[in-house]
Amino acid sequence: MSTDTAGTAARDEDPRSGGPADSAFVRACRRLPGPHTPVWFMRQAGRSLPEYREIRANVAMLESCRRPDLVTEITLQPVRRHGVDAAILFSDIVVPVAAAGVDLDIVAGTGPVVAEPVSSADDVARIRPITRDDVSYVDEAVRMLVKELGGTPLIGFAGAPFTLASYLVEGGPSRTHAKTKALMYGDPDLWHALAGRLAEITLAFLRVQVEAGVSAVQLFDSWAGALSEADYRRFVLPHSQAVLAGLADAGVPRIHFGVGTGELLTAMGEAGADVVGVDWRTPLDEATRRIGPERAVQGNLDPCVLLAPWPVVEAEVRRVLEQGRAAPGHVFNLGHGVLPETDPDVLTRVVALVHELSARPADQD
Amino acid sequence: MSTDTAGTAARDEDPRSGGPADSAFVRACRRLPGPHTPVWFMRQAGRSLPEYREIRANVAMLESCRRPDLVTEITLQPVRRHGVDAAILFSDIVVPVAAAGVDLDIVAGTGPVVAEPVSSADDVARIRPITRDDVSYVDEAVRMLVKELGGTPLIGFAGAPFTLASYLVEGGPSRTHAKTKALMYGDPDLWHALAGRLAEITLAFLRVQVEAGVSAVQLFDSWAGALSEADYRRFVLPHSQAVLAGLADAGVPRIHFGVGTGELLTAMGEAGADVVGVDWRTPLDEATRRIGPERAVQGNLDPCVLLAPWPVVEAEVRRVLEQGRAAPGHVFNLGHGVLPETDPDVLTRVVALVHELSARPADQD
Repeated sequence: MSTDTAGTAARDEDPRSGGPADSAFVRACRRLPGPHTPVWFMRQAGRSLPEYREIRANVAMLESCRRPDLVTEITLQPVRRHGVDAAILFSDIVVPVAAAGVDLDIVAGTGPVVAEPVSSADDVARIRPITRDDVSYVDEAVRMLVKELGGTPLIGFAGAPFTLASYLVEGGPSRTHAKTKALMYGDPDLWHALAGRLAEITLAFLRVQVEAGVSAVQLFDSWAGALSEADYRRFVLPHSQAVLAGLADAGVPRIHFGVGTGELLTAMGEAGADVVGVDWRTPLDEATRRIGPERAVQGNLDPCVLLAPWPVVEAEVRRVLEQGRAAPGHVFNLGHGVLPETDPDVLTRVVALVHELSARPADQD
Repeated sequence: MSTDTAGTAARDEDPRSGGPADSAFVRACRRLPGPHTPVWFMRQAGRSLPEYREIRANVAMLESCRRPDLVTEITLQPVRRHGVDAAILFSDIVVPVAAAGVDLDIVAGTGPVVAEPVSSADDVARIRPITRDDVSYVDEAVRMLVKELGGTPLIGFAGAPFTLASYLVEGGPSRTHAKTKALMYGDPDLWHALAGRLAEITLAFLRVQVEAGVSAVQLFDSWAGALSEADYRRFVLPHSQAVLAGLADAGVPRIHFGVGTGELLTAMGEAGADVVGVDWRTPLDEATRRIGPERAVQGNLDPCVLLAPWPVVEAEVRRVLEQGRAAPGHVFNLGHGVLPETDPDVLTRVVALVHELSARPADQD
């Protein structure tokens, strides 16, 4: 219980204290003015960093997500190196599903591979709800991280029901999500049972992180962009809403992200997000028109731009910041995860550039 | 020359003759009223058909594209089976690139694999322009097909410069197109030299098909949706424009298609298309708002819907037709290619349903 108190304290602290709740990141999520536009990168803890490749050299992905010492170290690496405005819990979207009893592995170069893909009500019934005990390593890692990070906010991490369901139904990564869609269209009751169970698990997984002290959460619906808005609203939105509504009393901003979601941005905001993540295909000013003034945006530099010469990177960072000014709050990020081949020094320079270009005199706050 | 005359004759024939130029398909492309909404399917000639799997059983993909007898038979298979309103030349987007001297193969289950990916001006210089002699098998197949097809129009087929360049630069299929984008950003002159050369080759490849008698052409920029509109306009649009402008005097409608192009639809229309292909992510009424009244649309049933029970298929076909009424011309199609696991009988039923639902009394024409 003492650790619970620590988590609650982190969220309830005096906003003038310089703690995470008053950070540039959380303020931008809440559409409050701050000292500068905050910046972090999806997959900032990952293969772009030599120190990450070293620590992971002899440790399988799932194992690394289950060892609090490794989770803590890997989560901290990009904070130390780049000076980003937020850390994000190092994990994988299938971690809670594996904790729920699904036999799966994360295969290097492929992604999650599920031993027995889901195709029946019995398969769904075997996916059991999870409790804190099933993911105690995450609880422990978050508590360690909150202490280590001090004033830097930690973002909790989970995959959304559609993206999780796609892995479970397809048995692994899919370009078309054809089996998943066939299940939706062909057996809506089974689909809703599966997505509903995954929503419960995701909510439980995020609540463990909130109770352990994260300052925000991000719900990744990475593959939602494969759906039309009509299908998204019918088959996916209610389940993502259940997750995000279940965190309404948590007191932390909720970020909701997917790739290729230009046509879904309005609906993804309605899922209950405080912040909608946007990829590089939709300019942030246009995204803001679709999302509305009630939510902040996060994004949206093309990760491939980081492979370009610095003058191109700088021009694109300026453009993203400029277009982000149309939003009521902007968290600078990429439009998808950092590519493994990215030079980490470029990420560090981007953080400094975003801070420099967006710095606001204190008296404007 | 006699064959050239045949081609020209097919295009110039009296529109009341019942020939391809007066077909429901060509009329819809030209935004003219017709007897019904025309329907064909991307990848209608392909693995969904048992007769295709049989004919391809011992023939490699590239070889099958180079044998006029096989091209003709495979192109005709879906016309015979489904009664679609148009045939599309069976080919692969890398056929003209291979004809230009690039060492590549199409690997089953992977896609095109390029032996030496393009990374320098020397690499680009080695990609030579093509003439009709380099693709005489295509010329021959088109002429055979035009005779066989009678009043059914044949659509010519080519990949667009960006999608072709991505295969050449990446060395094969890519999720991120990271090397391609890095080349664009890092060495725009080299990029434009490569894309310019590919535009020349594509134009030559399509002109061979036009001169042999195709009734329309489709330029596939399958992966253009990976780009922001700003990057598309700067790096891709001029080259696609060069191809389509080079066909302005050809007298056949030009269709331009890509996947995930919601944000690019306006620009893709400006590339010089008479018809813009739209995937299932953007409803056709919304797509029409973006494309404008000067162009027809083609699409956009989600190929995964064909895996659903018939009542779902029927409802979705009705919805697509309904939304397509907002466009000044509508060619019914999928939003991407037929999936190999599709039941071909469902495709046949969709053709009949589209015709039935969209039939117009003759006196309305």
